[in-house]
This record gives sequence, structure tokens and C-alpha cells, in this order.
Amino acid sequence: MMEVNRPDVLAEVNAAFDAYEQALVTNDVAMLDMLFLDSPDTLRYGATENLYGYDAIRAFRAARPSKGLARTVTARVVTTYGTSFAVANIEFRRDGDARIGRQSQTWLKTDAGWRVVAAHVSWMETK
Amino acid sequence: MMEVNRPDVLAEVNAAFDAYEQALVTNDVAMLDMLFLDSPDTLRYGATENLYGYDAIRAFRAARPSKGLARTVTARVVTTYGTSFAVANIEFRRDGDARIGRQSQTWLKTDAGWRVVAAHVSWMETK
Repeated sequence: MMEVNRPDVLAEVNAAFDAYEQALVTNDVAMLDMLFLDSPDTLRYGATENLYGYDAIRAFRAARPSKGLARTVTARVVTTYGTSFAVANIEFRRDGDARIGRQSQTWLKTDAGWRVVAAHVSWMETK
Repeated sequence: MMEVNRPDVLAEVNAAFDAYEQALVTNDVAMLDMLFLDSPDTLRYGATENLYGYDAIRAFRAARPSKGLARTVTARVVTTYGTSFAVANIEFRRDGDARIGRQSQTWLKTDAGWRVVAAHVSWMETK
């Protein structure tokens, strides 16, 4: 099987992930847009919406209020497979909210750099 | 960039996805276990639990009640990147439940066949 967590690849994806997280909490929409692959195949399931295609994701970000995006990452696992593919998964909390959030991303290395091709964000349900 | 949705690769992943879905609704635990990569890096965020590592996922499946797993897939997008990576995303409904479920999987081709390395299942929140 292809190499898992090759150190140079893992460093690249961690850097891309960090850039995404920083852009998210500061609502740097241009950076968020850049870090998703510009393709009709790209998709994002958000807590309250299912977005198919890069254009739908971009429109959502453009319309989203810029407040209340701050969060604390409470668990983080980035795993790379070979040199071109990775998954990044985190748990997070927002101030004043008891729920546990989860964010999953699948990253692909393109000629332009690492890009998210699929994402899923949700709140864990209490049983 | 690597080829997207190469027909032979897409056919393989669709077959693996179909096998997973069939195993899920029939609670074929052995097949579900086989289709996840046996690795401590494999993870699954479920509607009510966050599971890290193959062993945790297997223990969860072994303990889960076998009833109420039936569901109807209402949207499905499988996309392959190159010959070894794919993402599979669906929306689903359960009888008597108004909520929209979402399931995201990242698949990796191993020597033994296609395996899920990360999964995320959630109910979409109403705004």
C-alpha cells in the first residue's frame, strides 16, 4: 500500500489545514474559496445545508454572516496516503455551546497546491 | 491533475459502495468491518459518536442494535481521483423521520481492494 503519513506530505497538508482554519475563523472568504477545488464535483455538507459544486459553496460563503465563526479545535487527526491524498478530521467547540462539532475534509494535491474536494461539518447528537 | 472519474475506477468504487450500503441495511457486520481499512488511522464520526481507529469502529458495530438500519438514499455522488482515491457522499432518509441524513466516505484502493479510511454520518440541522 502507499506510504501513510510521509513526513514531507504530512507537513504540507498540516500547513494547508492550518491555513484553512485560520481563514475560517477570520472569515477570509478569498482564502477559503481558494482552498476548495474549483470543480462541479466538489461538495460540502454543512451543519444546515448540502452544497454540490464549487459555485454553490462559494455562494454560501459569500452570503454567510461573518460573526460567530470562532471555535476551539479539541481533537485533530490529519492522515496522508501517498503523496496526493489526505483526510483531515477535527472535533471543535464554540463558546457558550455545549455541543461537539465535527469537521471532515478530503484533500487532493493539485498542480496549484492542496485543495479540499469534499467536506462534512456537523454537530454530534446527544443520545 | 490526476484523471477524475476514470470509468473503470468509478465502476470499482460504485461496486464497493453498493456492497457497503447493502451490508449496512442488512447489518452484515463482517462485510462492514471488511470494507473499512484495518488501521489505527481509520476513523468514523457517527451521528452520536466519534470513533478513532479500526478497533473502536468494529466494537461499535458489534454492539449496535440490528434494527432500524433501513434507509432510502435520496442523493448520491461518487467521485474518483486517479486510480486509488475516491469520495462517496449520499443523502438519505429513514421511514417516519423527517430529517435529512448525510454520509461521507473517503475510499482508498489497497492491495486487498477498496477500503474506507474516513467516514462521517450526521443529520442535517434545521435552521
